Amino acid sequence: MNVLIVYAHPEPKSLNGALKDFAVKRLQAAGHAVQVSDLYAMNWKAALDENDSLDGKAGDRFEPSLDSKRAYQNGRQSEDIAREQEKLRWADTVILQFPLWWFSVPAIMKGWVERVYAYGFAYGVGEHSDKHWGDRYGQGSMAGKRAMLIVTTGGWESHYSPRGINGPIDDILFPIQHGILYYPGFDVLPPYVIYRIGRIDMARYAQITEELGQRLDDLFTTSPIAFRPQNAGAYSIPALTLKDDIAPALSGFAAHVA
Amino acid sequence: MNVLIVYAHPEPKSLNGALKDFAVKRLQAAGHAVQVSDLYAMNWKAALDENDSLDGKAGDRFEPSLDSKRAYQNGRQSEDIAREQEKLRWADTVILQFPLWWFSVPAIMKGWVERVYAYGFAYGVGEHSDKHWGDRYGQGSMAGKRAMLIVTTGGWESHYSPRGINGPIDDILFPIQHGILYYPGFDVLPPYVIYRIGRIDMARYAQITEELGQRLDDLFTTSPIAFRPQNAGAYSIPALTLKDDIAPALSGFAAHVA
Repeated sequence: MNVLIVYAHPEPKSLNGALKDFAVKRLQAAGHAVQVSDLYAMNWKAALDENDSLDGKAGDRFEPSLDSKRAYQNGRQSEDIAREQEKLRWADTVILQFPLWWFSVPAIMKGWVERVYAYGFAYGVGEHSDKHWGDRYGQGSMAGKRAMLIVTTGGWESHYSPRGINGPIDDILFPIQHGILYYPGFDVLPPYVIYRIGRIDMARYAQITEELGQRLDDLFTTSPIAFRPQNAGAYSIPALTLKDDIAPALSGFAAHVA
Repeated sequence: MNVLIVYAHPEPKSLNGALKDFAVKRLQAAGHAVQVSDLYAMNWKAALDENDSLDGKAGDRFEPSLDSKRAYQNGRQSEDIAREQEKLRWADTVILQFPLWWFSVPAIMKGWVERVYAYGFAYGVGEHSDKHWGDRYGQGSMAGKRAMLIVTTGGWESHYSPRGINGPIDDILFPIQHGILYYPGFDVLPPYVIYRIGRIDMARYAQITEELGQRLDDLFTTSPIAFRPQNAGAYSIPALTLKDDIAPALSGFAAHVA
């Protein structure tokens, strides 16, 4: 199978760098083809702007969505964007690996999403009607592909527990897992999260590679998170609220997992 | 009073641009001093890296936190970072204004947070002991200052309602409001969120400026979100989980609001 690792850490000799190298080797040893988008090494342009189209802005003002749509349709996107989209088409599974900085992905990775996720490619796809609100949340260009996060954080696991002060890790990652990955159609596997990375000794590192290795071995068999598809009956359209008989006692992020 | 607006939109002739200009005028008319960090106009460098210290990395490898701490302590930070920190010291209230892109701030604004929030300035502040886990979440360098988000989104309000498919807006914004603003000590006001910005006619624009104007007039009197301070008894230290008698039925983000 084909695996794309999108990786964001500025220092190759970091824990993240070591784990990225480990993952590449483990996947290759299992017979998979691997590509890595090492965003810092690529000097990835983080800020979405009018230069993302080879033609510049189309009208007298830059309109992020419309200009993205036009550049995508006309094959006039900046080459770095088109190249990443090609990797996504090629991939059977996409891994996003990053340190959790201020409770989200590093800016350089956010900019990868914003620029590569063109209108017509990752959003604005499919029919919009009273029964179908676009191919998204379970449908879309990435349908049939898998995705998984590998995340490191300095905080303790208890700080990210259900009553921990940072908020539960599943909720912190929901805008990424549901909003960025499930949205264009990925099946999202449970994340692999490493806590308290300031205190990693040899024994702990061995445990991490053991766990991560197992997760990589199981990449194509692990059950994805059971996010609810948008257009399969659970949601009213166009309000896009859960129907009354679906998880009636729940609200918030958790209600969107079956 | 002194108000800093940190603003991220690539197009001055956008709704965001118009509202930023409106806010500046409204605040000035009320007698406040206003500075704007217009991140796109400043060509703000989004990616945190070793060049954020004038001395480059300190050791044989770049360590984001430690190198940030050293550069901050020694007055060797990149000048763009030091300048933004000075604006934060000057401000009584900070407004972050941005379009919600993929359920978070634009990459360029995330990079403002990552780079300006130096170790020793916005985190790694204060004593760490069994009774006090750093000056954070209600304490810290920004204590006594207020902060507020102004957010635009293309989606409908119902999509961001308690059972809406995107998740509740308060939960989507929690990592920003609690994790980025409350963490270094800001009192965080309720956000001002504008939905469905693809459909703004003159009447709706008038309504928005009416509402936003009122919010700006009330900037120094509105009650902040009642996030729970970390070191005032609600949390066990160092686990940083809510004590059993605090909101015993709750978990998740909502449990951290009194």
